[in-house]
Amino acid sequence: MNRTDTPVTVIGLGLMGRALAGAFLGAGHPTTVWNRTISKADQLVAEGARPAPTVGDALKASSLTVVCVTDYRAVHELLGASDVELDGTTLINLTSGDSTQARQTARWAEQRGAHYIDGAIMAIPSTIGTAEAVILNSGPRADFEAHESTLAALGTVTHLGADHGLASLYDVAGLAMMWSVLNAWLQGTALLRTAGVDAATYAPFARRIAAGVAEWLPGYAKQIDSGSFPAEVSALETDARAMAHLIEESEAVGVNAELPRLIKAMADRSIAAGHGGEQYPVLIEEFGKPRAD
Amino acid sequence: MNRTDTPVTVIGLGLMGRALAGAFLGAGHPTTVWNRTISKADQLVAEGARPAPTVGDALKASSLTVVCVTDYRAVHELLGASDVELDGTTLINLTSGDSTQARQTARWAEQRGAHYIDGAIMAIPSTIGTAEAVILNSGPRADFEAHESTLAALGTVTHLGADHGLASLYDVAGLAMMWSVLNAWLQGTALLRTAGVDAATYAPFARRIAAGVAEWLPGYAKQIDSGSFPAEVSALETDARAMAHLIEESEAVGVNAELPRLIKAMADRSIAAGHGGEQYPVLIEEFGKPRAD
Repeated sequence: MNRTDTPVTVIGLGLMGRALAGAFLGAGHPTTVWNRTISKADQLVAEGARPAPTVGDALKASSLTVVCVTDYRAVHELLGASDVELDGTTLINLTSGDSTQARQTARWAEQRGAHYIDGAIMAIPSTIGTAEAVILNSGPRADFEAHESTLAALGTVTHLGADHGLASLYDVAGLAMMWSVLNAWLQGTALLRTAGVDAATYAPFARRIAAGVAEWLPGYAKQIDSGSFPAEVSALETDARAMAHLIEESEAVGVNAELPRLIKAMADRSIAAGHGGEQYPVLIEEFGKPRAD
Repeated sequence: MNRTDTPVTVIGLGLMGRALAGAFLGAGHPTTVWNRTISKADQLVAEGARPAPTVGDALKASSLTVVCVTDYRAVHELLGASDVELDGTTLINLTSGDSTQARQTARWAEQRGAHYIDGAIMAIPSTIGTAEAVILNSGPRADFEAHESTLAALGTVTHLGADHGLASLYDVAGLAMMWSVLNAWLQGTALLRTAGVDAATYAPFARRIAAGVAEWLPGYAKQIDSGSFPAEVSALETDARAMAHLIEESEAVGVNAELPRLIKAMADRSIAAGHGGEQYPVLIEEFGKPRAD
């Protein structure tokens, strides 16, 4: 099914909301839009979008409504208004928030008869409508599948599972990976710059290491799922000695050493807990609990 | 040139030294070995290695000597002995140490007439002798190239530049990337496990993000080298809001939040320094200096 004449509504026309509505319009969907300041819709209306006078009207115009507003408080404020009828409609909430808010909002919407999918956009507005834009969805699979072909206008849409909190969790986990790769690259770039090596010279080396280590993850995941961490490649206490080198080198050449120190602190705690002879993924036990002190 | 009858000497027969000597032997090189406790050489001697009674004798047996001992103090102790002649020989020092030690040792050896290359092994002993084993070398290019074909028996050998400190710097930079990818993956795995998602389910997602972000590095490096950080993709202050989500989510589900907090602290400092409207690589200014307090 790839019908592009399915009507769709977009609530919230910030930078991202306008990109979402524009992608639906571009794919040929009759698109209704609402925003508190409706002038934000001017360009979209010129491209064929229909502005709705109220949120209630906007929701009535389509069986599928995509919500992308400031925060979950705004979601509840807008959808909780007395003239809004949620019964039978499908909401795809792409507003940024955490997994608890997603699960609570799902219960709230479902109690009012709505089908509810919580989503997270792993993309910047300019890539919306291209395959590069990854949109994570979580909630009942049937509700997602009923609208998957419409949502496909936005980018690469993925369903993660029935738990409404998953999109938010995958989103922040992915961001943690993004910032960590960037920070490690900056740490290395800072180290190499002290020896007169420019960033462009170092970058391909960092890229190769990051991509190489990424390939280990599925194998390492098996250790975590089995709860057994034999030191097949290297023992944590051996790693810790090399971590000390990283700290010493950073301090000696005068670059920031906070990231190296955090890396070693996590490993040292795991070693202190008796895991020095095991392999790196045993650190999941430290990452899985709040810092004790 | 790919002669495998070039004699080579290996000083230091720990796990790694034995792997190095074994790879030279396997490639057909007449291999002389020395270790303080010479019984460590038994297996290698059975495979054809020639044990030398003293370090001086070991060095005389080949024009190329690979050193892989505990630390740089041991290097100086062994090679500084009165019966050791360094004039005219080539030393490849694969002992773990920092860039300062590498540069000082290079001066020391060169004053005694040796050709000196400092190296770092980015591999575990069991992969030595395969392409998977990456061995970084730094020092005069001509000295490296004169022995490149012999060193190729050890794995993938690379020359980084004339500065003897480069191998150590690239080594710790690469390790920082390795641990950072693993830690970010563990952070994400810990988050997802709170929702009942197992590590094997999450790993392919983390792998895709890490490999994807790795591809950005060469482009981002251009911003650093030009010293100009226009927010083409996203501004740091926008990133910081998403970092707050990562911290809140980690705390809410009860996993460790130290890595998320460090990520945000670095960004916050850069924003406080006036870079909130610029792009992520502007953080090089924070990574490039020791923590102020």
